[in-house]
Amino acid sequence: MKICVLGGDGYCGWATALYLSRRGHTVAIVDNYLRRQWDFELGVQTLTPIQPLAERLRVWQELTGSAIDLFTGDVTDYEFLSGVFETFQPDAVIHFAEQRAAPYSMIDRKHAVFTQVNNVVGTLNVLFAIREYQPDCHLIKLGTMGEYGTPNIDIEEGYLRVEHNGRSDVLPFPKQPGSFYHLSKVHDSHNMMFACKIWGIRATDLNQGVVYGTVTDETGLDEALINRFDYDDVFGTVLNRFCVQAASGHPLTVYGKGGQTRGFLDIRDTVRCIELACLNPAAPGECRVFNQFTEQFSVLELANMVKAAAAKMGVTVEVAHMPTPRVEAEEHYYNAKHSKLIDLGLHPHYLSDSLLDSLMNVALRYQDRIDISQFLPQIQWRNATNRRARPISASATVGAHTRP
Amino acid sequence: MKICVLGGDGYCGWATALYLSRRGHTVAIVDNYLRRQWDFELGVQTLTPIQPLAERLRVWQELTGSAIDLFTGDVTDYEFLSGVFETFQPDAVIHFAEQRAAPYSMIDRKHAVFTQVNNVVGTLNVLFAIREYQPDCHLIKLGTMGEYGTPNIDIEEGYLRVEHNGRSDVLPFPKQPGSFYHLSKVHDSHNMMFACKIWGIRATDLNQGVVYGTVTDETGLDEALINRFDYDDVFGTVLNRFCVQAASGHPLTVYGKGGQTRGFLDIRDTVRCIELACLNPAAPGECRVFNQFTEQFSVLELANMVKAAAAKMGVTVEVAHMPTPRVEAEEHYYNAKHSKLIDLGLHPHYLSDSLLDSLMNVALRYQDRIDISQFLPQIQWRNATNRRARPISASATVGAHTRP
Repeated sequence: MKICVLGGDGYCGWATALYLSRRGHTVAIVDNYLRRQWDFELGVQTLTPIQPLAERLRVWQELTGSAIDLFTGDVTDYEFLSGVFETFQPDAVIHFAEQRAAPYSMIDRKHAVFTQVNNVVGTLNVLFAIREYQPDCHLIKLGTMGEYGTPNIDIEEGYLRVEHNGRSDVLPFPKQPGSFYHLSKVHDSHNMMFACKIWGIRATDLNQGVVYGTVTDETGLDEALINRFDYDDVFGTVLNRFCVQAASGHPLTVYGKGGQTRGFLDIRDTVRCIELACLNPAAPGECRVFNQFTEQFSVLELANMVKAAAAKMGVTVEVAHMPTPRVEAEEHYYNAKHSKLIDLGLHPHYLSDSLLDSLMNVALRYQDRIDISQFLPQIQWRNATNRRARPISASATVGAHTRP
Repeated sequence: MKICVLGGDGYCGWATALYLSRRGHTVAIVDNYLRRQWDFELGVQTLTPIQPLAERLRVWQELTGSAIDLFTGDVTDYEFLSGVFETFQPDAVIHFAEQRAAPYSMIDRKHAVFTQVNNVVGTLNVLFAIREYQPDCHLIKLGTMGEYGTPNIDIEEGYLRVEHNGRSDVLPFPKQPGSFYHLSKVHDSHNMMFACKIWGIRATDLNQGVVYGTVTDETGLDEALINRFDYDDVFGTVLNRFCVQAASGHPLTVYGKGGQTRGFLDIRDTVRCIELACLNPAAPGECRVFNQFTEQFSVLELANMVKAAAAKMGVTVEVAHMPTPRVEAEEHYYNAKHSKLIDLGLHPHYLSDSLLDSLMNVALRYQDRIDISQFLPQIQWRNATNRRARPISASATVGAHTRP
C-alpha cells in the first residue's frame, strides 16, 4: 500500500513509518519539524540523541534498501497538502501531525488557541484533501483515550447504545476531555464523523492510550534511527519520567493520590495497530473508532512497578506525592473496552516484560543526558497564564555538558 | 446589570441589546460588522432596510434617553477584547459574535475553516478574558439546537443520565451536528464545559432553536431601529424564506419530504430568555445548558401554515418539494425538552399568533425589495467546493431598483 505518515518525524510517527516501510509498504513522511521547534521553545530535549530526519532517512535506506519519501511542510497549509496528495496519491493517510501535549496547551491563551487551531485546521485540511483528490483514501487519525475523561460507566469504543425514556439509539460516546489539547481531539472526532457522513470518507479514529517504550525492531537497527524519549514536564509522559527519575536517583513524582487510571501501550503495539487499521480499512462513509491500548494502570501502580524494577537493578527510589497541577479526579472508576484491535490480530506486548529492557535500560544508558530541572510540573491548569521558568544551573544538569 | 452584547449589530444581538437597555440595564455592544460584510460577499441583503449601527444607536438614545456603549472590533483579537473587559467590566457577557449560517460554512474549505476558527477562537478568547479580568462575570453563550442533531431518543437539556452495564452517570448529551457551523458550536460547548470546571467560570449555554420574527417592542419604536430579515439561501431561515416566497407569489421550496423537525421561537422570546439567564446566573463553575425554543415544527408543517396564512390574506401559494442540498434525515423522531426557561418565567409567544403580524406583513410591506434569485439553494453539502453564481438580471429582481 501507499501510506502517507503525517508527522512522521515525531515519536509515534517515526516508529510507524519505519515499521510500515519494512513491511513492504511504500511510505511517505510529511513533517514540518514543529515538534523539534517546541523543544527549543521549552528549553528541553529528548533523552535519546535523535538525528535530523534527512540523516535518519539516509541511514534507513542504506540499511534496508527502502526509500521513504519526504514532503517538508505544514498540513495546515492546504496548498502544500494538496500537492502531497496529487503527487503521492496515498491509499492510506496516518495523521499524527498534531500538537499532542496537554500541558503545552495549558501554558496560556496563545498556546491553547494555537493547539486547537493547528489540530482542527490540520484535520479539516486532510478531510478536504481526501474528498478532493483521493476519495477512496483511508484516513487513520490519532485521537486519544483522554477524549473520554473518566466517566463513572464503562468506556466503549467510540459509540454507546443509549436507552432513554423507552427509546434507544447508538450515539457517539459522550466526551469529557481534560485539557485544551484533549478538547482539540474531541473537535477533530466530531469533524471526522461528519465528513464521513456527508462525503462517504473512510476513517478510523484511534483513541490511543499513553505510549511507552523507545525501541522497536526498526529503530533498534542503528543508533542513528533511535526514537525520541521525552520525560520533561510538558511533552514527557508519566512512565518515561518515572524511569528517568529512578535512573538519576530522584523520587518518583506522583501527582496527588495517584489513583488516576489510564490506558497504556507499548510503541511496538502502536505500530502494529496502525498497520492492522491499514490492512482492514473502514468502509466508505464509516467513521470507526478503536480504543488503542492494551493495559490500564493507575499512576501509583506505575510508580510502584518502576520502583520494583529499579530495585532489581540495584537502584533504590522513593515514591513522592505532590499536588496535581491538573484539574482531575485523583480516584475514579475506570474500565475502558479495547477489543477491536485484538479482534483484528493484535498480540500485545505487556509492560511487565518491557519495563526493564525498553525503558529502564534506555534511561540508564543515557543518564548523562538527564536534566533534572525538567522533572517538576510548571504548568498549572487553574492558571490562565503560566510562565515556565527553566532554571539554568550547573546543579540542575547532570553531566549534559560532558557528553561528546 | 452591566451587560456586554458581543455581536450586538446582528439579528438576535440587536434586539437583545435594545431590550436589555430598555429594561434598565447598562448595555455595551461589541461588533466588527462582519455580518454586514457577508451580505456584500454573497450579493444579498436583508429584506428590511437596516441602518448603520451608529445611526441606530443615535436614534435609540434620542427616543429613550438610554445610551448604549459601542466597542468596534473583533472578539478573535484578544488585545481588543481585553480592552473591552478592562473598560466596561461586565457582570454578564452575551456572546452572539459568531458565524451562524450552516450553508456559509459549507461553501468550501476556506469557509469551513474560517467558521470553525472564528467561532472557536472567539469563544476561547471570551473564556480567557473572563478568567483574567472579570472572573465572576456570567457568560451567556448562544449555542444551537442543531448541536444535538436528530437522535432517536428524547433530547434533554445538555446532559443525559446514562445507565450502562449496571453503572450510572450524568454525561454531556451526545452531539451529532449537521454542518461545519453546527460543529463549531459543539466545539465551543466542550471548551466552555472545561473552562467552567478548571476556572470556576459561570456559564449558560443556550441551545437556541430557529428564531423567527422581526418586530420587538423596541425595534418597532422607529423605522431606523428595524431589525434584519434574512431570507436568502445562505443566511435566511426557512420560515422567513417561506413568507417572502408567499409574498412574491412563488412556491414554497420544501427540501425533500419536509419531515425535518426543529425547535422554533419568536425573537421576542429570545430577548426575554437572555434576560432571564442574566437575572438568574449560573453558579460559579457551573456550565448550565438551556434548550431555548418554544415549539417544534416540521418544515412541511411550516409550509402549510404559511400557505394558510397567505390564503387568509388573499394570496394563493403552492408548496413545492425539491431535493435537499443537505445531508439530513427527511423523516425522524424528534422530541426535545425545553422546560428550564419556562421554569424561570418565560411566557412564550406562539407562531400561530405572530405569523401574520410579524412575518407575512413584514414580507408584504417590503415586497419591492424581494430578490427572487435568493430563493434557491446553491450550497450542496456533498460538494467539497460550491461556486455560488448569483444571477444578476432584471427578471430576478422585483422592483428593487424602484424603491426610493
